[in-house]
Amino acid sequence: MVGDEILSGRTKDTNSNTIACFLAPFGIALKEIRVVGDEAHHIIEALNALRTTYDYVFTTGGIGPTHDDITADCVAAAFGVKIDVRQDAVDMMLERYKHEDLNEARLRMARIPEGASLIKNPVSFAPGFQIENVFVMAGVPNIMAAMLDDVAPRLPMGEIVISKTIRAPKLREGDIAHRLGQIATQFQALSFGSYPWFSAEGYGVQLVVRGRDKELIAKANEELLAMLAPFNLDLILLD
Amino acid sequence: MVGDEILSGRTKDTNSNTIACFLAPFGIALKEIRVVGDEAHHIIEALNALRTTYDYVFTTGGIGPTHDDITADCVAAAFGVKIDVRQDAVDMMLERYKHEDLNEARLRMARIPEGASLIKNPVSFAPGFQIENVFVMAGVPNIMAAMLDDVAPRLPMGEIVISKTIRAPKLREGDIAHRLGQIATQFQALSFGSYPWFSAEGYGVQLVVRGRDKELIAKANEELLAMLAPFNLDLILLD
Repeated sequence: MVGDEILSGRTKDTNSNTIACFLAPFGIALKEIRVVGDEAHHIIEALNALRTTYDYVFTTGGIGPTHDDITADCVAAAFGVKIDVRQDAVDMMLERYKHEDLNEARLRMARIPEGASLIKNPVSFAPGFQIENVFVMAGVPNIMAAMLDDVAPRLPMGEIVISKTIRAPKLREGDIAHRLGQIATQFQALSFGSYPWFSAEGYGVQLVVRGRDKELIAKANEELLAMLAPFNLDLILLD
Repeated sequence: MVGDEILSGRTKDTNSNTIACFLAPFGIALKEIRVVGDEAHHIIEALNALRTTYDYVFTTGGIGPTHDDITADCVAAAFGVKIDVRQDAVDMMLERYKHEDLNEARLRMARIPEGASLIKNPVSFAPGFQIENVFVMAGVPNIMAAMLDDVAPRLPMGEIVISKTIRAPKLREGDIAHRLGQIATQFQALSFGSYPWFSAEGYGVQLVVRGRDKELIAKANEELLAMLAPFNLDLILLD
């Protein structure tokens, strides 16, 4: 994620949540989110750290026509490849722009690192691109979301992570923490989250069990419900 | 930022925006956001990378009583110091809890790395802590926000970053990118952002100039307005 506008607090990042939700049905778990500013060395460092650590990297932002749009150049630098205006990218842009409107600034958006394949942009027509395991997308949320349609067919289908949630009003985490830890140890293949809330209306805890084995999750959920039974609470069960 | 709940897409991260907005009046610019999962080596690696790169690090999440709350231990490991239950932290918790309620799980929340000072939690009373340049806070958004009240007096006051925004409906970025780049080069002390939007209602660009010199920003803003004049648009000017 590239952008001073997020770091300044002006804009709330919604793209990372969109990407997390987009990846879930593929069974791909988002493992890390980074937001860095519009500075080349930060972007290049982050790209190289992430692309060598994880299966896929998704970047958003910094591929427009203005001086602060430096992501494509940084990606080229990170991979050590050339970057130049490419005719297939220009052709995509000609679906929206007249020839005479493709000025030097707009042609910057057709600069694609060597070896990359294009990602379609049905909103504003300047493409994103994929190079190896890195997907480079626009920062504008509705353009980014539209680009994911062209990313989807390139991802493998894995086993989906499913979850069950128990919402327990008036529960205090500390009263179940010990037993919850035991259950988590008992079901090593699953992950257990405990998320308390405190508001003017009251307090409580959401317990979430996540994993890829449906039957095991059902079993673990039974254990959680048994743990909660003595508290006599009005539980809300969610999938 | 620590938490599988953000990475899974279940929960939208609002804490980083709260922190960005909190820091702005101190003249402290947020330079990077990282969200990592509940895995010790990831948390420790991120902590050590960030605390040696930046002036301050703010962590949220992972300091509750349950098995998945491992942030305090990771901070201790990152700094190479011991961690144990501390009486001043227990005393803070006794403002809310009865002695008999302070079970082993809840006492986990009073485990504080050696050398750290406590951060008050007026909502649920389990403290955060500061160790050197790292502030460790709760993940629940209203608790995190309340803890910032006790963080504020520990931060230095620097020159505030101010900004001016021009909202330009029906402007296309590519039409001003060249001139905008020239203006950005002319005012090296300021930063210029260009943020296009595309929606069902229309499209446009927001231009934002940021910096610490009010007069220079006013001058730059004049240049931006002069750049936009030929387009005859209904501009909206924001501070």
